Amino acid sequence: MKTLKERILNEGKYLGKGILKVDGFLNHQLHPDLTMQMGREFCKQLSHAGVSHVSKIITAETSGIAPALAAAVAFDVPLVFARKKRPITMPDGFYSSEAPSHTKGGITTLMISPEYLRADDRVVIIDDFLATGLTTKALIEAIQKSGAEVLGIGAVIEKGFEGGRKVLEPFKVPIVSLAIIERLDDTGIYLKD
Amino acid sequence: MKTLKERILNEGKYLGKGILKVDGFLNHQLHPDLTMQMGREFCKQLSHAGVSHVSKIITAETSGIAPALAAAVAFDVPLVFARKKRPITMPDGFYSSEAPSHTKGGITTLMISPEYLRADDRVVIIDDFLATGLTTKALIEAIQKSGAEVLGIGAVIEKGFEGGRKVLEPFKVPIVSLAIIERLDDTGIYLKD
Repeated sequence: MKTLKERILNEGKYLGKGILKVDGFLNHQLHPDLTMQMGREFCKQLSHAGVSHVSKIITAETSGIAPALAAAVAFDVPLVFARKKRPITMPDGFYSSEAPSHTKGGITTLMISPEYLRADDRVVIIDDFLATGLTTKALIEAIQKSGAEVLGIGAVIEKGFEGGRKVLEPFKVPIVSLAIIERLDDTGIYLKD
Repeated sequence: MKTLKERILNEGKYLGKGILKVDGFLNHQLHPDLTMQMGREFCKQLSHAGVSHVSKIITAETSGIAPALAAAVAFDVPLVFARKKRPITMPDGFYSSEAPSHTKGGITTLMISPEYLRADDRVVIIDDFLATGLTTKALIEAIQKSGAEVLGIGAVIEKGFEGGRKVLEPFKVPIVSLAIIERLDDTGIYLKD
């Protein structure tokens, strides 16, 4: 996605230790046109990859919500965002799985209420980053506990060098990343293509 | 907003202690049409109330993000979501303010990076709920530290009986709620109008 790649190259900042700062258009500030375009692009590319009859978009809070809502608009299906803290409104019997936390170094539990995910749901997972793939893997595992099928995965930015694609390969579903970073170091940000 | 009010009456559940569960369309699952309609309704009603030349939408993570993105689309301006944990990407000098936490009973700090909020910004605040008004008040205070002006406030659901409107009155800006709950008890959910 050209406009996204330009923004990454123009505004992205490498902060060391593999950390890419894209707060200006993904993790703190969002531009409505760019965000909604991401949703259409996910829909187009996943459809081209054979994904069809999608019934639900699922993401993990927080930074996944905006691109996932954009995808939900494009696919015209509901979006469910997995919670990281159990709200008092979530009943027992929720589907959950654990993933290493980026920010805290600990473990994050992703929780989805059985009220909004059914065995016959056909799910696309959308997230802001695909890095180690462990958050996405945890989401897939939580979703599969419901009996629902994961049809495809979309990430706004993939850090190609962190091996996430390999981690997700066993699930045998198409993975669409709108921009893939091949290398990230003090000399710059190097995108695929 | 008629479709929203119908959903609240049909799907909302009163869980006791003033807690309204609307996870099916606001706090866990989102419907793209309904959500994007909220954004257009905020834009329409706030414009009618005299709000103009808006340059930024601001919300607090997590459940505010979706309706705020919808409002950002309608107003065609960027959205900034205040963070509750300081990400490693946020520089010093951020604007912050404290609010009581709904879920934890403690204190939540709302943080906005000075990179995405300027003294000449004209801000509309959007959130999922207006209850005690203390989260919105904290957001206003954080925003005002930047020199930016808050022009208006939009909430998807207002719990009219929790006094938030009174708390926000001193700021003298229009407050638009898409649905106002006047009473909430074991006998039902009672909406204004």
